[in-house]
Amino acid sequence: MQIQYIFELIGTLAFAISGALAGDERQKHDWFGITFIAFITAIGGGTIRDLFLNSYPLVWFKDMNIVYTIFLGIIMSRLFYKKFNQLKLTLMLFDTLGIALFTIVGLEKAQSLGANDFISVVMGMFTAVLGGVLRDTLINKTPTIFVQEIYATACIIGGVIYLILDDLQLDRNINFIISGSVIAVIRIIAVKFNLSLPKFYK
Amino acid sequence: MQIQYIFELIGTLAFAISGALAGDERQKHDWFGITFIAFITAIGGGTIRDLFLNSYPLVWFKDMNIVYTIFLGIIMSRLFYKKFNQLKLTLMLFDTLGIALFTIVGLEKAQSLGANDFISVVMGMFTAVLGGVLRDTLINKTPTIFVQEIYATACIIGGVIYLILDDLQLDRNINFIISGSVIAVIRIIAVKFNLSLPKFYK
Amino acid sequence: MQIQYIFELIGTLAFAISGALAGDERQKHDWFGITFIAFITAIGGGTIRDLFLNSYPLVWFKDMNIVYTIFLGIIMSRLFYKKFNQLKLTLMLFDTLGIALFTIVGLEKAQSLGANDFISVVMGMFTAVLGGVLRDTLINKTPTIFVQEIYATACIIGGVIYLILDDLQLDRNINFIISGSVIAVIRIIAVKFNLSLPKFYK
Repeated sequence: MQIQYIFELIGTLAFAISGALAGDERQKHDWFGITFIAFITAIGGGTIRDLFLNSYPLVWFKDMNIVYTIFLGIIMSRLFYKKFNQLKLTLMLFDTLGIALFTIVGLEKAQSLGANDFISVVMGMFTAVLGGVLRDTLINKTPTIFVQEIYATACIIGGVIYLILDDLQLDRNINFIISGSVIAVIRIIAVKFNLSLPKFYK
Repeated sequence: MQIQYIFELIGTLAFAISGALAGDERQKHDWFGITFIAFITAIGGGTIRDLFLNSYPLVWFKDMNIVYTIFLGIIMSRLFYKKFNQLKLTLMLFDTLGIALFTIVGLEKAQSLGANDFISVVMGMFTAVLGGVLRDTLINKTPTIFVQEIYATACIIGGVIYLILDDLQLDRNINFIISGSVIAVIRIIAVKFNLSLPKFYK
Repeated sequence: MQIQYIFELIGTLAFAISGALAGDERQKHDWFGITFIAFITAIGGGTIRDLFLNSYPLVWFKDMNIVYTIFLGIIMSRLFYKKFNQLKLTLMLFDTLGIALFTIVGLEKAQSLGANDFISVVMGMFTAVLGGVLRDTLINKTPTIFVQEIYATACIIGGVIYLILDDLQLDRNINFIISGSVIAVIRIIAVKFNLSLPKFYK
């Protein structure tokens, strides 16, 4: 089994938990609602990427491990949600792992399907962030990518670094780890020091 | 003409009416707005299913009867909306017929395109409920599947029963009627006795 | 280079600006957020059309001029947003140019892919208006097509006129200009005289 595949499952787990806990804030969602939101959060980004790239079958249609992983995340959320909510930091780290892994997974997939550099970086970022955009839209929140700390930007920077190192013929596995780490480190630093992008309009 | 096809048109009519009346609650939509919402409600679920399954052309692109049926639903809504709104029960029954029929139609289509059991049930449920999710998101309501009585769950149960009976080699038409009826009966009982799924978080 | 292609780029620029300025109303979006909304507004309609028509690769995946045009629109918005907001009329004219051009571009594309007349008109209208629907949904506004002056209706009328003139064997370029002008004129008259469609329910 490829190391990337394990990373993808870990990212899926992280996003499923983040989706299941997003419902918690309103306290009103039933079992179906939470399951639905967890799925959308975990597979939404990759699904939109695959629709855009005309890549079929969709990943979760052919790989039941993705589905089992999401159910695992839902069950973990139910069992440990009090802990998880105390441990906002743990959650943020999971989510950070998720976007770091999904960005590179999505970028590599777009590249392998012949997308140019710009589109590959965008598809990597979409894979990482669009599940969260759908989650927030469904629960009528302004998507966090619009109002929060550096998030999608970290994915874009990491994607660009991946492309540069790839151009320099760096080994793909090492590149994956370096670029993914860059994304994670940028996000963590941004959260820790409360950094954000400048507002577009002053 | 297949009996399933007639069922599909009846489901389409029911959803078009439900979409056209959803706009009514706010009283501000014009003719275009209502038409748009009625279409999204009636074809949204099937369209997303077909995009996910890579099944082209989309049903409403090749079959104008679907389109005529939706316009019929819009005209009926305009003529009878006072009656319809008095008769919430009638409407709920139409909607219940819609989800029962669309679930099995969607499940069978996914199966015929080679989807596994899990995905087939999910595609059936998506066909039934996603039009309503889009409708609610467009008019800025929290999608009813998240807050209401047993709804999507009835579709999932009916889908699973269809698969079990299909495995037992039951005739497809009889199976369609039995599984669809299960969905309808569960929904009606849930509404009548105000049953709902347990909240995910206590 | 075809005249239509230049029209498409002008329409893209107009929509990118309209998207970038939509974020302004809330004053809180950062650089990434504005860029994201500008892209969605400019390419959302065409992307949904292409997904529905199974037309790959998506336009913006293969033509970087579209991407450069959107970035140009974003930069122009930043430089001139005070001017733009004083000049609501200028903006409305840009947007009107956008829907006029995108309607005919989308209609012709659908036709060339074998869609029937009804679907071609709908695809033209979708190309013109769905980017704005996504923009409004993302920033939690009721989509303007539901509440404002004659907008999508102008696209539909222009599309129908295109089909009629096409049936009469009118030269395609002349037809493009006539039908597009009809859309623009209807919209401008509707704005000037504050015309709107009748409400669906009295």
